[in-house]
Amino acid sequence: METVSENRSHGGTQGVYRHQSTATGTEMTFSVFVPDHAEGQVLPVLTYLSGLTCTHANVTEKGEYRAACAKHGIVFVAPDTSPRGEDVPDDEAYDFGKGAAFYVDATQEPWSAHYRMRSYVEHELPALIQSRFPVDMARQGITGHSMGGHGALTISLRNPGRYRSTSAFAPIASPLNCPWGEKALSGYIGADRAEWRQYDACALIEDGARLPDLLVDQGTGDNFLEDQLKTHLLQQAVDAAGMTAQIRMQPGYDHSYYFISTFMADHVAWHANRLKR
Amino acid sequence: METVSENRSHGGTQGVYRHQSTATGTEMTFSVFVPDHAEGQVLPVLTYLSGLTCTHANVTEKGEYRAACAKHGIVFVAPDTSPRGEDVPDDEAYDFGKGAAFYVDATQEPWSAHYRMRSYVEHELPALIQSRFPVDMARQGITGHSMGGHGALTISLRNPGRYRSTSAFAPIASPLNCPWGEKALSGYIGADRAEWRQYDACALIEDGARLPDLLVDQGTGDNFLEDQLKTHLLQQAVDAAGMTAQIRMQPGYDHSYYFISTFMADHVAWHANRLKR
Repeated sequence: METVSENRSHGGTQGVYRHQSTATGTEMTFSVFVPDHAEGQVLPVLTYLSGLTCTHANVTEKGEYRAACAKHGIVFVAPDTSPRGEDVPDDEAYDFGKGAAFYVDATQEPWSAHYRMRSYVEHELPALIQSRFPVDMARQGITGHSMGGHGALTISLRNPGRYRSTSAFAPIASPLNCPWGEKALSGYIGADRAEWRQYDACALIEDGARLPDLLVDQGTGDNFLEDQLKTHLLQQAVDAAGMTAQIRMQPGYDHSYYFISTFMADHVAWHANRLKR
Repeated sequence: METVSENRSHGGTQGVYRHQSTATGTEMTFSVFVPDHAEGQVLPVLTYLSGLTCTHANVTEKGEYRAACAKHGIVFVAPDTSPRGEDVPDDEAYDFGKGAAFYVDATQEPWSAHYRMRSYVEHELPALIQSRFPVDMARQGITGHSMGGHGALTISLRNPGRYRSTSAFAPIASPLNCPWGEKALSGYIGADRAEWRQYDACALIEDGARLPDLLVDQGTGDNFLEDQLKTHLLQQAVDAAGMTAQIRMQPGYDHSYYFISTFMADHVAWHANRLKR
């Protein structure tokens, strides 16, 4: 693991690191914020998954999470959204290929060789974080934005008990039922929609997966709400399952980091409350 | 004045605007954050001047000021750092020409036609802000980073009584005594160093200008501290003048927005305390 940069910020260290990933077969870059802490102390971890077109850098620069993480003593981990590099197949569209790997393990050529972000985020990255940072992996939370909100929800739903806390900002509620999801899952996973259900938060809940609780913020001024995000499908799924969930519609907020940063401190505090018990 | 974008954020509106400037003879872009407020209410204004290579966008995206400004009811204004456009003379260096106008009114060719950021920030922009936003210009504060810290200090020192509060992040303390300053002032103002004193915070204080008080944060891990910023010269000047100033050396912090964002809420609260009396 190589240190790209480390900057002192908000009473902690904001690092950016690079390593050779076995899951994706490429170099992967991620950021980690570690609040100051006593020697030997281990801290809870909150992983944030980013949305379409993003790298680790967007939330690292614009997410406004450091003050809250320092206050609550939470390590914040932000991976990239796809494999990168000249050898990695891509697509001209912003919503497929690089920057748009949808947190799946692709099964279709030519994507299956490198587009293995599910394995990367579920297994390889947590193991690396555990080995290199002062963390207590028994106290993990996960969150994310848009495509990354979809990632956070589905990864947590598929791994019961691993994440003590799960939240999302403007998540894609059901890739089975929106153009972004249909394009990505048919491309990466193939035509069999039954295979898609493991990558659809609503379908996972319908199929019996549960979270102890859930916090979601969604802006009412979000241009993608109606056609892509479809928060109401998530509300319907949690209602039908009798799952505890706080799905908050935030008047006038859009899909940008101006929205995310507004509610970030709330989410960090919400996770901290569950991770520090 | 044209609206480039408006986004809801932190209980307010983050706008970006463009207008034709008479001071610079170019289009100028700036950002304004307006917290929600009662109809007819006018709010104090904090102007932030950015550093070398920046536009309005850096602090707008990375400055982490909105939560504090919303809490305290402060309008936050961030202009660009130079005139822009194909007709505007430039220099290949990052520290002269576009992105590096040093908040002076240039007297030397070819810079004097457009490089009039002193007039822009001291006169034209405040008049525009007053005419278009819900502000109380009797309650103004000013701050800035690096070259913009120099700008904030010198503009406030030259206009006694206009700004109720003045602060800076890692300011260039004395352009007369550092390579950035010598290059910029000789280029824009000419060889007569007596003319430079109006653009040097330490010289202005030596020459009798005073501020009621001052807050400065400076990272000890800042690569530019020793050769360019020279905080000790500002400390010496305020000590010699018997001026009240809090100049805080922050251990390990560098010159980046990771530093600025850490202390931004402190600065906003410090200004609010003086602007809301």
